[in-house]
Amino acid sequence: MALDLTSLLGPARRDDTVGTMVRGLVGSEILRIAGEIRELVAQGKQVCNLTVGDFSPKEFPIPAALGEGIAAALKAGETNYPPSDGVLTLRQAVLRFYERTLGLKYPMESVLIAAGARPVIYGVFRAVMDPGDTVVYPVPSWNNNHYAHMVGAKHVTVVTDPAHGFMPTAEQLAPHLPEARLLCLCSPLNPTGTMISPEALKDIGQRVVEENRKREAQGRKPLIVMYDQIYWTLSFGQTKHVTPLELVPELAPYTVFVDGISKAFAATGVRVGWSLGPPSIISRMKDVLGHVGAWAPKAEQVAVARFLDDVPATTSYLEGMRKRVDERLVALHQGFAAMREAGLPVRSIAPQGAIYLSAQFDLIGKAGLKTNEEIRKLLLDKAGFALVPFQAFGLKDDTGWFRLSVGAVSMEEIKAALPRVEAVLRQVMGK
Amino acid sequence: MALDLTSLLGPARRDDTVGTMVRGLVGSEILRIAGEIRELVAQGKQVCNLTVGDFSPKEFPIPAALGEGIAAALKAGETNYPPSDGVLTLRQAVLRFYERTLGLKYPMESVLIAAGARPVIYGVFRAVMDPGDTVVYPVPSWNNNHYAHMVGAKHVTVVTDPAHGFMPTAEQLAPHLPEARLLCLCSPLNPTGTMISPEALKDIGQRVVEENRKREAQGRKPLIVMYDQIYWTLSFGQTKHVTPLELVPELAPYTVFVDGISKAFAATGVRVGWSLGPPSIISRMKDVLGHVGAWAPKAEQVAVARFLDDVPATTSYLEGMRKRVDERLVALHQGFAAMREAGLPVRSIAPQGAIYLSAQFDLIGKAGLKTNEEIRKLLLDKAGFALVPFQAFGLKDDTGWFRLSVGAVSMEEIKAALPRVEAVLRQVMGK
Repeated sequence: MALDLTSLLGPARRDDTVGTMVRGLVGSEILRIAGEIRELVAQGKQVCNLTVGDFSPKEFPIPAALGEGIAAALKAGETNYPPSDGVLTLRQAVLRFYERTLGLKYPMESVLIAAGARPVIYGVFRAVMDPGDTVVYPVPSWNNNHYAHMVGAKHVTVVTDPAHGFMPTAEQLAPHLPEARLLCLCSPLNPTGTMISPEALKDIGQRVVEENRKREAQGRKPLIVMYDQIYWTLSFGQTKHVTPLELVPELAPYTVFVDGISKAFAATGVRVGWSLGPPSIISRMKDVLGHVGAWAPKAEQVAVARFLDDVPATTSYLEGMRKRVDERLVALHQGFAAMREAGLPVRSIAPQGAIYLSAQFDLIGKAGLKTNEEIRKLLLDKAGFALVPFQAFGLKDDTGWFRLSVGAVSMEEIKAALPRVEAVLRQVMGK
Repeated sequence: MALDLTSLLGPARRDDTVGTMVRGLVGSEILRIAGEIRELVAQGKQVCNLTVGDFSPKEFPIPAALGEGIAAALKAGETNYPPSDGVLTLRQAVLRFYERTLGLKYPMESVLIAAGARPVIYGVFRAVMDPGDTVVYPVPSWNNNHYAHMVGAKHVTVVTDPAHGFMPTAEQLAPHLPEARLLCLCSPLNPTGTMISPEALKDIGQRVVEENRKREAQGRKPLIVMYDQIYWTLSFGQTKHVTPLELVPELAPYTVFVDGISKAFAATGVRVGWSLGPPSIISRMKDVLGHVGAWAPKAEQVAVARFLDDVPATTSYLEGMRKRVDERLVALHQGFAAMREAGLPVRSIAPQGAIYLSAQFDLIGKAGLKTNEEIRKLLLDKAGFALVPFQAFGLKDDTGWFRLSVGAVSMEEIKAALPRVEAVLRQVMGK
């Protein structure tokens, strides 16, 4: 007879058994919405689910060669501990990939492999920040608030605007740089699908270098830039992804890149990410993540190394991926443009990168709608159109802006959903 | 032309770019020794490598069905994000596994999947501890010092002795319980290969329950027990693994188990671990590890779920594993016993569990040997016999005790090495 522990365990959210930091950790708004959608789908309702920053494996399978490579590596016995900074062949392959595709030639000590991009971000915060140090980040942006909370940092947020593609400008950031230990930038940006311009990035980079020259003279700790480019292979149209280092090489000792296969190869569940940066920080991130044990599985590391080195296969997969993501984003963007032309209060920013579209449903104050949350509910309930409001990304105001993520939907679902959205908008506007 | 960053990056251990916590993180002694061994092997020297707490896939492959299951899951598209507490089927399978094999019936909210046992341990420390809180742990033990350092805890260590199989007693722990927030226990123990007796464990468990009754009356936070049983399926001879809960069920709201496939299925590089405990703590560990992103890869989770539910396959693999680990430990133990009978100063503790043997080379003060480090170097250089001194596990004194890990060696390597060890001991003793 097993010992039934159910009645012995006590309440689920019993605060007095846990520490202060975790009591202040906020749950994910996106996961709450996901639960709601699951319920609607279970009821048989048709939902175009644009909420999750993930892929449907049916719409976006990983490269077949990568899956086969993992199976082969498992068969070959790649099942024991990887080195804590990653399998050597993968570190080498990442260095070649960066030199080949981004024009950045890093030494071996500059690359760290981890179980995805999240561990890398956590590693940067943990390695760089002391409690009470200041982190500066723009909003809307993804999860910087949670990482800052976990390390006990002081948050300074800079609210961006659609006129600048929701990207921060050097002017906005400048007043905050003197007190900052860490500046978080991300391009292409989750949640907006926009990219920073080379001009703006260069301007920001130069100010960071200036700031650090001053600090060096004063013997103060430098300002570090975390540059999250996990979506960089997914850029569309005219916009080209740029790294801060090609614009301002002097930033190299202060810049840590966040990257990996999760988005580029539709492999969020395969858990392989990487970071490149100055060895002074990378080596400490390795120490942290080694103890945390956030290592990428070994067979996956071996297989990714082989796949990255297969230039034609990698290039062709990325091209296909880009095309399929782009056509979904364009379909949504054009759909909204047509509605706008028809006088309906919706607009979106032309897709530039990532798997996201920024769309504004300008309904606040119309038909009694007061909040983004009410707009979200309306579109979900009446149009089966599931979005995430920018509030989930740190923005406080109800501006009618939403993130639309296309990784888990088909073209057919998008085409079927747009008329439902239009019908709801017409109803609200009495048109 | 790629931008060559090598000269721009600055020194590798530049302290002023990183935070205080990481500057105090101590590197692994075991990894330092591993580097030394790699060099000797590269020079063509024969080394019986008993240092790594890992498996050689040649000697200890993962279950074939598990590897095939992962390949099948990848092919079936299990490549997107797993839920942050783990794939439902795996959580269910772990609950059934615990009920079936350990007689513990937990509810669903009590199980969390992570990328191995390390993330689970980190999650416990992060969820439970506030900076300055006290953690109590016995030494020798594995890595508690690092986790305590990372969360800014006050360490209280209890030095154990070979007479008690290097296990702590209730009497030793009792004075420290009133101030403790977390008590770390591990059985079978890394590094000693010994197991705690049911009597000792029951005694400790009862004192924790008493302590928590007092605290409850005072409105104070309870004392939490982290019970690391990652090696529990590997127990030998007469010794049976026990959980604190079967002895003291009232401990359930205060006990968090650390476990996973890493050691049971020789799958350290596959990165699947789990934790069971009160939902009040498990839910916060999920919050922490979700942001850290230390998730087990999804295909692996799906495959482990299927394998655990295949009771005959699991049972038969575990039996074979146990036998092959045991024969290696016994060969070493008997070898040392024979040397001891021949008057040589070596002894070991009969193997009880895990993949480790505790052996004492009682050479301090003999032939000018003053430290464990000197004994280690002597055995490595003269006998090609590579061990880790207990100092790597938090013990300060030079007692001649070492950890011998058998996961990466064959029976042949052990048999070939023992005469080399005997020869060195005879030489030192002039026999």
